[in-house]
Amino acid sequence: MPVIQVTMSQGRTVEQKRELVSVLTRETARILKTKQDSIRILIYEVSKENWANAGVLGLDM
Amino acid sequence: MPVIQVTMSQGRTVEQKRELVSVLTRETARILKTKQDSIRILIYEVSKENWANAGVLGLDM
Amino acid sequence: MPVIQVTMSQGRTVEQKRELVSVLTRETARILKTKQDSIRILIYEVSKENWANAGVLGLDM
Amino acid sequence: MPVIQVTMSQGRTVEQKRELVSVLTRETARILKTKQDSIRILIYEVSKENWANAGVLGLDM
Amino acid sequence: MPVIQVTMSQGRTVEQKRELVSVLTRETARILKTKQDSIRILIYEVSKENWANAGVLGLDM
Amino acid sequence: MPVIQVTMSQGRTVEQKRELVSVLTRETARILKTKQDSIRILIYEVSKENWANAGVLGLDM
Repeated sequence: MPVIQVTMSQGRTVEQKRELVSVLTRETARILKTKQDSIRILIYEVSKENWANAGVLGLDM
Repeated sequence: MPVIQVTMSQGRTVEQKRELVSVLTRETARILKTKQDSIRILIYEVSKENWANAGVLGLDM
Repeated sequence: MPVIQVTMSQGRTVEQKRELVSVLTRETARILKTKQDSIRILIYEVSKENWANAGVLGLDM
Repeated sequence: MPVIQVTMSQGRTVEQKRELVSVLTRETARILKTKQDSIRILIYEVSKENWANAGVLGLDM
Repeated sequence: MPVIQVTMSQGRTVEQKRELVSVLTRETARILKTKQDSIRILIYEVSKENWANAGVLGLDM
Repeated sequence: MPVIQVTMSQGRTVEQKRELVSVLTRETARILKTKQDSIRILIYEVSKENWANAGVLGLDM
């Protein structure tokens, strides 16, 4: 049943996303001893003005 | 107090969203015995390259 | 592909949750013209000290 | 370790976001007695057709 | 309409949560020029075995 | 900056969680070409009465 939600900066290629969901699904299924079929991944892309570390926008780093 | 977050593929019409929030709010209030006023819904639309089932991007299905 | 996440106060019965996921799934599938099989629901229960409206904890209302 | 996720309507300026993440980080660190370095904020902007109160879309209010 | 979701380690007191939701709501309303009434906060508490930085569980730090 | 949120059924061991966060962090950093230091993972455990597929609670499967 795992649902994996990844929030990350915009701009990754489709190829990177394709590998990411494939590998995260395979490894999660292996470690949690669940079926790959049961795993869903959602990716939320945010621009550099929409995330911050330590109170500073990504835009200003 | 319920907050309902719906993550779904892009491309639904405003009319579909209007019916969706109306019906989900009415039914949730009825079942949970809470007021419709207290229910908030957030919709996150993701493109087909931003979700995956079983390790495969929506784009590749 | 819809994933529906419901955050609500603790204390609903299993019977209420059973009806909630059944009805939300059926109605969402109907309105979005998608299969019920593709819909996943996650419920997060929070205690009254873990949510607030207008800056006031549920505990203090 | 706090992660703060803010979902809000589209259209705020970068200046507002800059102040928001700065102030939320500073105040959260102070109240929770944690380091500002450990706090991450994510902002999700949604259009008026993607949120609802009491079953009514923001678009229709 | 802002919804603020805070994920943090277990163990804060009710008094800290009360101040946190009060201050975050007041400051967010001020900066975004919205009403405090429209702001909802949800707190998710996670144990030290349920979060990680840099691949290391909080439990192991 | 990636934040990874994993929602899964209760009951995994600390050892499984330790491996999960280690592997997901390492693989995500490699694929997205980002530093492991920048990756945060949050795990939300839900009981079998708090998730559903196709309108059926995990409890009833």
